[in-house]
Amino acid sequence: MKKFINEADSLLHDSLKGVGSVHSNIVEIQFSPTFVRRRQRPSKRKVALISGGGSGHEPLHVGFVGRGMLDAACPGQVFTSPTPDQMIAAAGAVDTGAGVLFIVKNYAGDVMNFQMAAETLDCPNATVLVSDDVAVDGSTHTTGRRGVAGTLIVEKLAGAAAEAGADLARCKAIGDRANKLTASMGVAFTSCTVPLAGRPTFDIQADEMEIGVGIHGEPGRRREKIQRADLIVDELLTAILRDLNPQSGAEVLMHVNGFGGTPLMELYLLFERAEIQLRSLGLTPARSLVGNYTTSLEMAGASLTLTVLDSELKALWDAPVRTSALSW
Amino acid sequence: MKKFINEADSLLHDSLKGVGSVHSNIVEIQFSPTFVRRRQRPSKRKVALISGGGSGHEPLHVGFVGRGMLDAACPGQVFTSPTPDQMIAAAGAVDTGAGVLFIVKNYAGDVMNFQMAAETLDCPNATVLVSDDVAVDGSTHTTGRRGVAGTLIVEKLAGAAAEAGADLARCKAIGDRANKLTASMGVAFTSCTVPLAGRPTFDIQADEMEIGVGIHGEPGRRREKIQRADLIVDELLTAILRDLNPQSGAEVLMHVNGFGGTPLMELYLLFERAEIQLRSLGLTPARSLVGNYTTSLEMAGASLTLTVLDSELKALWDAPVRTSALSW
Repeated sequence: MKKFINEADSLLHDSLKGVGSVHSNIVEIQFSPTFVRRRQRPSKRKVALISGGGSGHEPLHVGFVGRGMLDAACPGQVFTSPTPDQMIAAAGAVDTGAGVLFIVKNYAGDVMNFQMAAETLDCPNATVLVSDDVAVDGSTHTTGRRGVAGTLIVEKLAGAAAEAGADLARCKAIGDRANKLTASMGVAFTSCTVPLAGRPTFDIQADEMEIGVGIHGEPGRRREKIQRADLIVDELLTAILRDLNPQSGAEVLMHVNGFGGTPLMELYLLFERAEIQLRSLGLTPARSLVGNYTTSLEMAGASLTLTVLDSELKALWDAPVRTSALSW
Repeated sequence: MKKFINEADSLLHDSLKGVGSVHSNIVEIQFSPTFVRRRQRPSKRKVALISGGGSGHEPLHVGFVGRGMLDAACPGQVFTSPTPDQMIAAAGAVDTGAGVLFIVKNYAGDVMNFQMAAETLDCPNATVLVSDDVAVDGSTHTTGRRGVAGTLIVEKLAGAAAEAGADLARCKAIGDRANKLTASMGVAFTSCTVPLAGRPTFDIQADEMEIGVGIHGEPGRRREKIQRADLIVDELLTAILRDLNPQSGAEVLMHVNGFGGTPLMELYLLFERAEIQLRSLGLTPARSLVGNYTTSLEMAGASLTLTVLDSELKALWDAPVRTSALSW
């Protein structure tokens, strides 16, 4: 196993210590139970946004804690749900009296644990379930569609709403709408290796790709020979557009996400093809984001995420954000 | 070869088109000859900073074009020097009458081509040669030390000086001083694959690492079994500190750089160990940067870069910057 690691057990702890040191102006880290919260407290009552999930997808979620996005993130061990005590402690720390909104990727463990936390909390709370992956309807550890790179979009849009003073119901409505208007699909060239497992999650031939892969290496729609990048983009976009069915003339946010082991050059090349195709279909890629944001450790591969924008969502996307991984 | 690519020949062109689309508010792309320049022209005369080199290290250099850093970048094909016509065209486009400063990583091809461009230019010009890699004194295609992740530091510090109105001689002096006060060393777990070559640059066993690797996969000091992350950090830091020999109590900028295929979790873990060690030696890691900034395509591995700060360099580091890859 080729990793910078001391013991698999201490990877998360040591890594979070580093995050806390490097970004001490933005976040602070709490242990036992573990969560990452904003350093700077909101100056007025606002809905608190909390997300979380297994580690190994960084910068998701800890890199998105900060003004304009999350108030706290609860990281579990690699690809393992955090526990309710983390969410309850995080909520206790960041609730300003306006309530707490959980943003949860649709995996059985995450859903169950956030639900247990929600039931225990004695403040108003609500949950947005993210399920943007159109590749498959159910999957390993998932009933219904998986939540993948669209989670970032939901966190940014709901986060901007909360920052602007929207109440809990309104923040949840924005998050639900963002999820509904967002669709993703990815492809993997290689597996990742979970440190505690010590070997690749799946085997794949040197000339093969997994179309519709999940962000933990879950199976997608099929395995086939690697194609030209243009053909890959076209297939992913077709599946995404079939799901979203945007009106001609619509403005969209185009997010090309790397899974960790894919060079930026290739991600920009994917974007270029996607933009050409969107325009040829009468859609306007009005906003864009390209980079490794929702990763699967060192997996080589990428996903496309499309969000249909309206003027409200566009303004929420453009609103200032200051986190360690996303800042404008 | 597992890459998102159409033809190896068109990768750079297609990728730069994507960069131009995604970051159209910051840069514009010129082809024939190829260079990336700031979208927003300086409002007054300022020294123009131009860097460049082979592609495959993104975001270096094109991701560092923008206010507070580079005025233009000249990308060559993957791991191949750009040509003098690119640098001459870029200089013609961004020179405001205050002269042009080239920032060049110390590789024979880059040095020769930037030198030819400098001789052709009919504006005042100067060059800062970056040679921060302490691993080896000479290497494949290199006489003297290689320029690696410290290049970003030189570009940021000289860029801030130029933005503040420093003249050409002063910008060069800042760049030279930044280079002298900066040292780096890296380690690779895997090779990268240059698209035109179609196979890994070097072979390495499943349990081995290359200590002191170059950012094109050049040999380092030795090959050995992978060690605990703490031991790797300690060895790299020892070599770096032997070179810089900072005074006890000095403030330093600690940069942990990923080569492309290493998860953020691991990079933060490396930082955490480095910080503990620096403090134990009486040094203060006053500034930090962690991420994949000077990559080697999809290589798994990382480097440490240390810059000894004084109040002037610290202020230049803190000065505002707005590029696609670095922004504060």
